Amino acid sequence: VEAGGLACPDIREKLSPTRSPFSTHNNLGGGFVSDEERIVVSVVRGNSSAEEEPALALRAGARETIYFDPKRVTAAIVTCGGLCPGLNDVVHGIVNKLFDYGVREGNVLGIRYGFRGFYSKTDKPMSLTRQSVDGIQLRGGTILGTSRGGADLRRIVQKIDMWGVNMVFVVGGNGGNAGAAALQRELRLNDVDCVVIGVPKSIDNDINIIDKTFGFDTAVEEAQRALLAAKVEASSAYRGIGIVKLMGRQSGFIAMQASMASGSVDVCLIPEVRFELDGDRGVVSYVSRVLENKGHAVVCVAEGAGQDVLSDGPNGVDASGNPKLEDVGPWLKAELKKAFPDSDVKYIDPSYLVRSTPANAGDRIYCKVLAHNAVHAAFSGYAATTVGLVNSHHVYLPMSAVVRSPRTVDPRGKSWNRLRASIGQPDFF
Amino acid sequence: VEAGGLACPDIREKLSPTRSPFSTHNNLGGGFVSDEERIVVSVVRGNSSAEEEPALALRAGARETIYFDPKRVTAAIVTCGGLCPGLNDVVHGIVNKLFDYGVREGNVLGIRYGFRGFYSKTDKPMSLTRQSVDGIQLRGGTILGTSRGGADLRRIVQKIDMWGVNMVFVVGGNGGNAGAAALQRELRLNDVDCVVIGVPKSIDNDINIIDKTFGFDTAVEEAQRALLAAKVEASSAYRGIGIVKLMGRQSGFIAMQASMASGSVDVCLIPEVRFELDGDRGVVSYVSRVLENKGHAVVCVAEGAGQDVLSDGPNGVDASGNPKLEDVGPWLKAELKKAFPDSDVKYIDPSYLVRSTPANAGDRIYCKVLAHNAVHAAFSGYAATTVGLVNSHHVYLPMSAVVRSPRTVDPRGKSWNRLRASIGQPDFF
Amino acid sequence: VEAGGLACPDIREKLSPTRSPFSTHNNLGGGFVSDEERIVVSVVRGNSSAEEEPALALRAGARETIYFDPKRVTAAIVTCGGLCPGLNDVVHGIVNKLFDYGVREGNVLGIRYGFRGFYSKTDKPMSLTRQSVDGIQLRGGTILGTSRGGADLRRIVQKIDMWGVNMVFVVGGNGGNAGAAALQRELRLNDVDCVVIGVPKSIDNDINIIDKTFGFDTAVEEAQRALLAAKVEASSAYRGIGIVKLMGRQSGFIAMQASMASGSVDVCLIPEVRFELDGDRGVVSYVSRVLENKGHAVVCVAEGAGQDVLSDGPNGVDASGNPKLEDVGPWLKAELKKAFPDSDVKYIDPSYLVRSTPANAGDRIYCKVLAHNAVHAAFSGYAATTVGLVNSHHVYLPMSAVVRSPRTVDPRGKSWNRLRASIGQPDFF
Amino acid sequence: VEAGGLACPDIREKLSPTRSPFSTHNNLGGGFVSDEERIVVSVVRGNSSAEEEPALALRAGARETIYFDPKRVTAAIVTCGGLCPGLNDVVHGIVNKLFDYGVREGNVLGIRYGFRGFYSKTDKPMSLTRQSVDGIQLRGGTILGTSRGGADLRRIVQKIDMWGVNMVFVVGGNGGNAGAAALQRELRLNDVDCVVIGVPKSIDNDINIIDKTFGFDTAVEEAQRALLAAKVEASSAYRGIGIVKLMGRQSGFIAMQASMASGSVDVCLIPEVRFELDGDRGVVSYVSRVLENKGHAVVCVAEGAGQDVLSDGPNGVDASGNPKLEDVGPWLKAELKKAFPDSDVKYIDPSYLVRSTPANAGDRIYCKVLAHNAVHAAFSGYAATTVGLVNSHHVYLPMSAVVRSPRTVDPRGKSWNRLRASIGQPDFF
Repeated sequence: VEAGGLACPDIREKLSPTRSPFSTHNNLGGGFVSDEERIVVSVVRGNSSAEEEPALALRAGARETIYFDPKRVTAAIVTCGGLCPGLNDVVHGIVNKLFDYGVREGNVLGIRYGFRGFYSKTDKPMSLTRQSVDGIQLRGGTILGTSRGGADLRRIVQKIDMWGVNMVFVVGGNGGNAGAAALQRELRLNDVDCVVIGVPKSIDNDINIIDKTFGFDTAVEEAQRALLAAKVEASSAYRGIGIVKLMGRQSGFIAMQASMASGSVDVCLIPEVRFELDGDRGVVSYVSRVLENKGHAVVCVAEGAGQDVLSDGPNGVDASGNPKLEDVGPWLKAELKKAFPDSDVKYIDPSYLVRSTPANAGDRIYCKVLAHNAVHAAFSGYAATTVGLVNSHHVYLPMSAVVRSPRTVDPRGKSWNRLRASIGQPDFF
Repeated sequence: VEAGGLACPDIREKLSPTRSPFSTHNNLGGGFVSDEERIVVSVVRGNSSAEEEPALALRAGARETIYFDPKRVTAAIVTCGGLCPGLNDVVHGIVNKLFDYGVREGNVLGIRYGFRGFYSKTDKPMSLTRQSVDGIQLRGGTILGTSRGGADLRRIVQKIDMWGVNMVFVVGGNGGNAGAAALQRELRLNDVDCVVIGVPKSIDNDINIIDKTFGFDTAVEEAQRALLAAKVEASSAYRGIGIVKLMGRQSGFIAMQASMASGSVDVCLIPEVRFELDGDRGVVSYVSRVLENKGHAVVCVAEGAGQDVLSDGPNGVDASGNPKLEDVGPWLKAELKKAFPDSDVKYIDPSYLVRSTPANAGDRIYCKVLAHNAVHAAFSGYAATTVGLVNSHHVYLPMSAVVRSPRTVDPRGKSWNRLRASIGQPDFF
Repeated sequence: VEAGGLACPDIREKLSPTRSPFSTHNNLGGGFVSDEERIVVSVVRGNSSAEEEPALALRAGARETIYFDPKRVTAAIVTCGGLCPGLNDVVHGIVNKLFDYGVREGNVLGIRYGFRGFYSKTDKPMSLTRQSVDGIQLRGGTILGTSRGGADLRRIVQKIDMWGVNMVFVVGGNGGNAGAAALQRELRLNDVDCVVIGVPKSIDNDINIIDKTFGFDTAVEEAQRALLAAKVEASSAYRGIGIVKLMGRQSGFIAMQASMASGSVDVCLIPEVRFELDGDRGVVSYVSRVLENKGHAVVCVAEGAGQDVLSDGPNGVDASGNPKLEDVGPWLKAELKKAFPDSDVKYIDPSYLVRSTPANAGDRIYCKVLAHNAVHAAFSGYAATTVGLVNSHHVYLPMSAVVRSPRTVDPRGKSWNRLRASIGQPDFF
Repeated sequence: VEAGGLACPDIREKLSPTRSPFSTHNNLGGGFVSDEERIVVSVVRGNSSAEEEPALALRAGARETIYFDPKRVTAAIVTCGGLCPGLNDVVHGIVNKLFDYGVREGNVLGIRYGFRGFYSKTDKPMSLTRQSVDGIQLRGGTILGTSRGGADLRRIVQKIDMWGVNMVFVVGGNGGNAGAAALQRELRLNDVDCVVIGVPKSIDNDINIIDKTFGFDTAVEEAQRALLAAKVEASSAYRGIGIVKLMGRQSGFIAMQASMASGSVDVCLIPEVRFELDGDRGVVSYVSRVLENKGHAVVCVAEGAGQDVLSDGPNGVDASGNPKLEDVGPWLKAELKKAFPDSDVKYIDPSYLVRSTPANAGDRIYCKVLAHNAVHAAFSGYAATTVGLVNSHHVYLPMSAVVRSPRTVDPRGKSWNRLRASIGQPDFF
């Protein structure tokens, strides 16, 4: 289905249309969304940098015509990559909506520990039922298990074909979505009529186009706790300096938003913005002034920040192809301790505490709607399609659009500028 | 300034333009917003019910040209109506941004206990400084105090004139915004060059046009706690029924969203949707089926729901002009107890617990940006203008647009339909 | 076994002693407790009101000699009365310790909805396994269900005999313990060799002798939240008065301790201490002075307080034999509103929110040790015995000692006096 | 005053007795405690290891006779060592009780950043008032600031003499109490009539004799959060292993109690109990079995655990005289990663998050009573005396008794044994 540059692929020509089991009675009013509905992607006007021709995205939601007979659906759900608040909410939502459509008990499979679970000899898929997912949303993590890294597409397609799976739901990040897109291609090449639908996941909020990823707000809430703790430590110590390292290898959204929320950060360092430690404009010189004015200072640093200052050259890549990072936290702690020998320097690394927590109420709702729309997308015959929120409206996007490159904080954009204005942070370069 | 039907008034012709104290250095990149920038209000296309000509709203943000000399600004901040999470964040944000502009210490006044604080003989305005507002955002409530009900505009204008106040920030609901708009008119009639800027507040999320009100997400989080408690009570008792009454006199957003988030509600009753208690399609009959299937049931009811069933006729209005409501909670408890004499019926009314809590991280950021934009609006010479979020972009709106009538849940809209589909709730009428 | 006035009954003469399955290896060191060990009950000396001859209680813990062959044990667990944080922790602890002893899977029964579940035709006992109780402690409430009120002892004994149950664990309050003691008598009369062991439960902390009941600290934490909310409401309103009603029909422990913790209460009213509303020494006159000094006031009232002021005479008793109470909360709200017409009076009744929450870490540990000791007591052949904490040591007590009469706050004791001294509360009578 | 081996020193012979300002009216009933009242310290009987002659401790509380005229009191409060939940509660309680006695405004000094604040040229003492400490208990940390390490007693005594300070309250750990005891000696040698009263603080709960230190329960609650996060991470990963490092250099109370509370720990390693990593009885071999049975494992390690395994020899001591520790966390992570290359090993170090949090309700009450009793002790003329809780009764203890050596977990005692029995942990040595 075309949509102003953001067309979503489908495999409808291989399928037979039928009527949705939802009637006007139980899906009244806001009910069905037509394939003609679009959401404007770019809403800023009168700014030279705004796009001339605003892209339109397909509006997400239940369609009146569906392309799978619910009685013949076998669905598989897989979660990939790092944990994120809300994973269990998404699984819960997909499972329940599938059964709402009338999928038969026993036909919803939970794939264990990521894509490899399709063909693992030890960890076979688990049957997911309304009962087995009841209450899982109150726990963090994912009941399916997850893992990082690649998988053997051929073996996955073999299993999908053998088990008669015709819907695969992939909850994953840029890597997971790329894997999902590749899987859809492999399925087509092998003439297997199965749709792959993505629910984009990234605790770093680094997915293109969409307003924000699920779980991000919850992660910011938890990250803020660490910043407030650092404030307590710093302000209770003599010339105290509190340092908090937060997630964000390539993009500093968590660090930026948690700093903005906490109101207790003096310096925020993110991968997108270069800084120098020494010199008149450097971080040390600025921290020195903060200590003089306030008596203490709080520094928030994203894990990917300052890699150029920290190391002499590139460190190569790890098994998943991500660049290896030096650990900026202990380095910064050592440097500040060296620069301020009289100061009490406290270092906090909340690490997994930020992501293993259950979702807050807002994320819980968001996850549920994403999950439901993913199921609607599958029944509508869309393929290699992902769900998302654009300008606060739910849409369908082609996977190709969201995986291009990770979204990063724009150092000249509104959000970063707002933080800098709020905390009075100068350029450190 | 015109903006496709959503023009914001200004009093620039009475003022002298000058350059913003923010340089390109400290406001780099995302920095200034021009008066020409607009945000598209209606982003749905291809739906017959979508507006033909999408309205455009003025984009909010710092302008390069300002119309007040910061050295000569005296600003007053007033909070009106019921409490809401984030009030102190807004006050904190306004105060700090005013001082960022260069307003002189002593020239930022906190008006006590609502509009009447302008002329109260016992509760004089308090001077707000960076120091005096430090950390207030970690506490619920408002340090200024608040109150409901009308005020004497003439006496307020007298004081504004006498004290040389040229910026008034009103944090209030539909009533507060109406008061603010009236105040702007009265100021103009009296030729007092003072701008009135609104920050819309409503724990019920019933303000027109904008995506959501600040504090709403936090309130939903707290409301969800009560629903989960009701689930625990109901499921621990023999044929247990848990009833939770939530805020929402005319609109059921809190009840709807908390029910959606909790995943533990069987019946959700809101003012916008009629219901019958008895009869085949009634609530009692449905609860009976839920009890049979699950062994227990949870009912969420907004305080304004079912007024037609509950009373024989209108009850008149209270002092503020709001219609008097019968208390639906105890009534529903009694009715369900009567219908299910063997059941253990537990009633929970979290009341003020929902609104007196500090804001969560997301609301904290939202409040801060609203506050900053309110100050930018004032310096830009806008008048009778309110800040808001539209399609996830910050905008300025004329007060007249947001106060028309309280926003309500659309019984045929997407959100209500999603909840009904999620919990399987039929029509009760 | 005799213990200085606090002897615990046993039925050892009906049973055969054998060695505990726990070896010195896995129960090393702190391991076994001998029947000779005692804990001093009264530890105050040199105070004329202290007891002359301090009672000694049996020390709780695993015995080296046990009186039941684990392979032949069938155990039943029942929860009675109102919810309390930690109920699921206790169930979890009992189940796991039974299996640690070697009880066979299928032989641990969860009785549904209180004592009546022994003979309910619709709600049969559920088999409890390590797996089925895994994680239940993270949820509030009780997975067994609970109910109030009496039961038919004869029918219970019939079922115990028929099913071969030889251990019954009763988690209940003063009523539940009385029921448990009566059940033990009935079992003896019918020559059924089954021991009944109690885990005392009371959210009001009104059990005699023991330091505190499980879940009480968690309830105080939640109650304190309501008091802090009332403080926020009161201090944000003009001459604001916040009123919080807390649990406590006959004893005011929750109200007293939550007031002590919160540091935000001006007046605390409990059932044990008479007060007058009017007159020079009355509550109204005192609140008036607080309002004058502070601008706002917070009142905490236990539900059983002021019954003599509130009603003209006794209201009779309810089905369970508890005296019917007038609702002191709305009455107090109306009276204070009448006395202070200009004040904004906010009333909060957190009701079940206080008790449906999961246990905090301290209560979680406490519940676990109580549960384990209950199982040790049963294997040791004790009967009509209850577990408890005395002077921070775990003990066994005869049920007869704990059920005498509900413990109440001593109006001349240290705790009440500390609160009064802390908040400066005078006599109101 | 003698007390069965636990006599508290006093300087009453240098002072003049007078009547307490508290009358029988406002201190009624539980009111005054006489110097003759004692609390039995050892309450276990019939156990060969129990003490023959139970020590008695002085009962804490307000005395009818006081030895300082409140109008002439100047008091100083100092907080030393690491942060702990409840520090601000203690400061708040001391300040308010001093003013309750009638100490004059301006005469309560807050010493900045530990003992050195007595003579710091830059950080002068702050005047503490009811107003300035209002609400501080809702924040973590200490408003006074704190520091580690020794101080110059002579200079402190000079300042105490010069400022006319006659009461010093020291909130500190074993080090702080030792410093306080030394200060009392130095004061006596210099004939300065000033009493030094201690409030024992230790987040590790390693203070002798007393039931528990303030803030410990709150720290366990926070530590438990990290363990639950590790459980989520481990169970969501393929053969996941979660490792949490908790505070506890010499004693493992936090690790033990948080493991007991969480119900999610498989292995708990503390400094008091030796372990081997390799070999049949080693940790690795046991974790391997846990992984096989459950699919994942959670390990909790106190920071002082395994120092003998970890390093070849002693590492010397740091500036404060504490032995330098190798960092057991990353070492254990590396070793387990090496032993289980297919496992996903997640390491969490919550560090300061555990201690910078505000106190929970139970600790809040505990802090308040300790603080009040400290002030009562000072007015009673006690010297080098510390407050504490023994067998759930409040007492006074000579500082010499509590500082002897840090309390440690008894590897053959009840608490450790209970944990081992609960989680099924074998000997690793």
